[in-house]
Amino acid sequence: MTTREILLGAREAWPKLSMSTAAARSDALLRMADKLIADADTILSANASDMEAAKGKISDVMLDRLSLTEEGRIRAMAEGIRQVAALDDPVGRAISHVERPNGLVIERVRQPMGVIAIIYESRPNVTADAAALCIKSGNACVLRSGKEAFRSANAIVEAMREGLAEAGLPGALIGLVQDTSRESAKELMTAVGLVDLLIPRGGAGLIRACVEQARVPCIQTGTGICHVYVDRSADQDMALSIIENAKTSRPSVCNAEEVCLVHEAIAREFLPRLRKVLVDDRIAAGQPPVELRLDGRAQAVIEGTPAGDGDFDTEFLDYILAVAVVDGVDQAIEHIARHSTGHSEAIVAEDEAAKVKFAARVDSAAVYLNASTRFTDGGEFGLGCEMGISTQKLHARGPMGLEELTTYKYVVRGAGQVRK
Amino acid sequence: MTTREILLGAREAWPKLSMSTAAARSDALLRMADKLIADADTILSANASDMEAAKGKISDVMLDRLSLTEEGRIRAMAEGIRQVAALDDPVGRAISHVERPNGLVIERVRQPMGVIAIIYESRPNVTADAAALCIKSGNACVLRSGKEAFRSANAIVEAMREGLAEAGLPGALIGLVQDTSRESAKELMTAVGLVDLLIPRGGAGLIRACVEQARVPCIQTGTGICHVYVDRSADQDMALSIIENAKTSRPSVCNAEEVCLVHEAIAREFLPRLRKVLVDDRIAAGQPPVELRLDGRAQAVIEGTPAGDGDFDTEFLDYILAVAVVDGVDQAIEHIARHSTGHSEAIVAEDEAAKVKFAARVDSAAVYLNASTRFTDGGEFGLGCEMGISTQKLHARGPMGLEELTTYKYVVRGAGQVRK
Repeated sequence: MTTREILLGAREAWPKLSMSTAAARSDALLRMADKLIADADTILSANASDMEAAKGKISDVMLDRLSLTEEGRIRAMAEGIRQVAALDDPVGRAISHVERPNGLVIERVRQPMGVIAIIYESRPNVTADAAALCIKSGNACVLRSGKEAFRSANAIVEAMREGLAEAGLPGALIGLVQDTSRESAKELMTAVGLVDLLIPRGGAGLIRACVEQARVPCIQTGTGICHVYVDRSADQDMALSIIENAKTSRPSVCNAEEVCLVHEAIAREFLPRLRKVLVDDRIAAGQPPVELRLDGRAQAVIEGTPAGDGDFDTEFLDYILAVAVVDGVDQAIEHIARHSTGHSEAIVAEDEAAKVKFAARVDSAAVYLNASTRFTDGGEFGLGCEMGISTQKLHARGPMGLEELTTYKYVVRGAGQVRK
Repeated sequence: MTTREILLGAREAWPKLSMSTAAARSDALLRMADKLIADADTILSANASDMEAAKGKISDVMLDRLSLTEEGRIRAMAEGIRQVAALDDPVGRAISHVERPNGLVIERVRQPMGVIAIIYESRPNVTADAAALCIKSGNACVLRSGKEAFRSANAIVEAMREGLAEAGLPGALIGLVQDTSRESAKELMTAVGLVDLLIPRGGAGLIRACVEQARVPCIQTGTGICHVYVDRSADQDMALSIIENAKTSRPSVCNAEEVCLVHEAIAREFLPRLRKVLVDDRIAAGQPPVELRLDGRAQAVIEGTPAGDGDFDTEFLDYILAVAVVDGVDQAIEHIARHSTGHSEAIVAEDEAAKVKFAARVDSAAVYLNASTRFTDGGEFGLGCEMGISTQKLHARGPMGLEELTTYKYVVRGAGQVRK
């Protein structure tokens, strides 16, 4: 099927889903999860073909992401779908209710978006996750997997469709674009009238392509140049623990720290301790050390790589940290305003005034006072799930859960009222 | 100043506004209103020049929209600003609050968007309205007026800036694009990183241009092909009253009815009554009659213009109504799904099942049960104001008030928490 046919199929199938009950959608998800387990052999063999074809072409990290070779990963996908099934369903909920003087009763009611298109890369579990979140929130979805994972995605989608069919819902509610060229991504971006929401989940290149080319409503996700600012009033042990966590617990993710800003009044004391924790101690423990890229003022205190032009504007996604010394919280806020991608920023401080100012003035999706940026995540925020992390201001900001996959409409009940 | 300089000026001025208190913003609005009155002579003389230049080039209706010649219209603008000043301020309001098991306190807090750009046409009062709504909600604005109203808009903006200055806020918070060519509209649409939200307020051509060209987040507003469906169970007197109101009370606005769908079981009785109310009675009363454009089934019952190909897909904004006979509520819903712009649709019915189905399945911003579509309006919905009516599903749907001009951010308070 062509991408257009898949989109039309999803649109045509959607009313059946949008009219279904919350119980019916949960039931469909449980059946989809069961089918993933039942079809594990087929999925594993499709994944083996993907792995075979990708070997030597992509990095070991990417190969690991692609791999489903342990059956545990399929069980984990099924478990993820079951957890989504158990979440509170936002669809149909009245979010406001007014009775006007003329007797009109005006309610705002949560509604599914319609058809959500998702462009992603090589993690097969995104296929199951994304489809489950869409179905639960009453949306049809059209998925476009990266080409490395296409066979796996296809097998996973087939299994999920069997689950939908068993639940009496059309399989076309979960579409998988059959063409994995750039053209098909562009086709989704420009399918005005067929795509109600496009969510790109991937690197900076994909997000840029969406900003440039998308004609359908789109939510930018995931690029994170996250900052931690250490104030002069900071508990320095706390600051070191937060930075170690934010930088090294999982450097390849968007909520990892990329830049550290240090108040000049404590730079001589703090920077050597930072270097010890991120470099020396890690070498001694046999862990990968963090490369420090230092601005001029930091270089005057500790050793490290002199920061180049782009280092404060780069999402390293690696064991690299750009470090700058600032005059204080105002300069930290200005630095962040200039260089941040609007994802997550933290201040470590005991001084209440510094914290209040930082929280008020930093214009990012998540602002942390004395905690690690790594918490920006749907699960950690209590949403129970996550479709991605929005770094834009329109519609949704930060982790997107089920509610963020819905819109609303006004339902107005009258008894013949007309407007004067 | 170039458009880019105006945008940069607004961005630079914005933090001062976003950090201001609700009281300071209200105070600034009251001063803006006072200055409009104080500068009335300057504004009237600028408007006289606009009127002089436009005479013979635009229609009488457009000329009337442009005119501020009565001083009453300036007082009305000032009154509008004062009403906005008195509204509840959404900025800084916590919209969710959770304490997580690890002790993190996570709040979602309403925030201004930043810089809002608004492209509009020739009604000078939009200049005052739009600026007031932006300032109240903590946003800088960059306005682009239609060229016919440019001198008036400039004088109004000057007065409002004096008000801002008196309140200790930068005048650059209200920018007016000095170039009224198409190029400047395109520049706003593509000012990635400088415009946080673009709101086009105008005809279908402007909205289409935004869908095609906008690279910045944009909210489509205002195109309304609104339907009224008359069910077999309808109170026909009520239906006639609603249709007369929806079609003739103000045909040039987006919430006016453009299409009437009638259940076949009552077509022989209802259509002649419809024709009497919209055509014969109006001629007898010296009012402009409504031209009926009829599908084949309606033509079999009453006289009227045979509907052409595009008549069910046209926003007439005039005394014209397309009329079709349908088999029942299902076919009405399908017709609306194919032809509607997603603005406002109404059903007139006594049958509960028909109303429930229509409310659930019609996918438009506002769905009316036994009331006129003309109520889709911020004031009528109790929002106290309106920046336009969104016909898209992302972010805001239907009338946009102050809340819809804001975003939110997460503020997370910890005591050194790190993620496992």
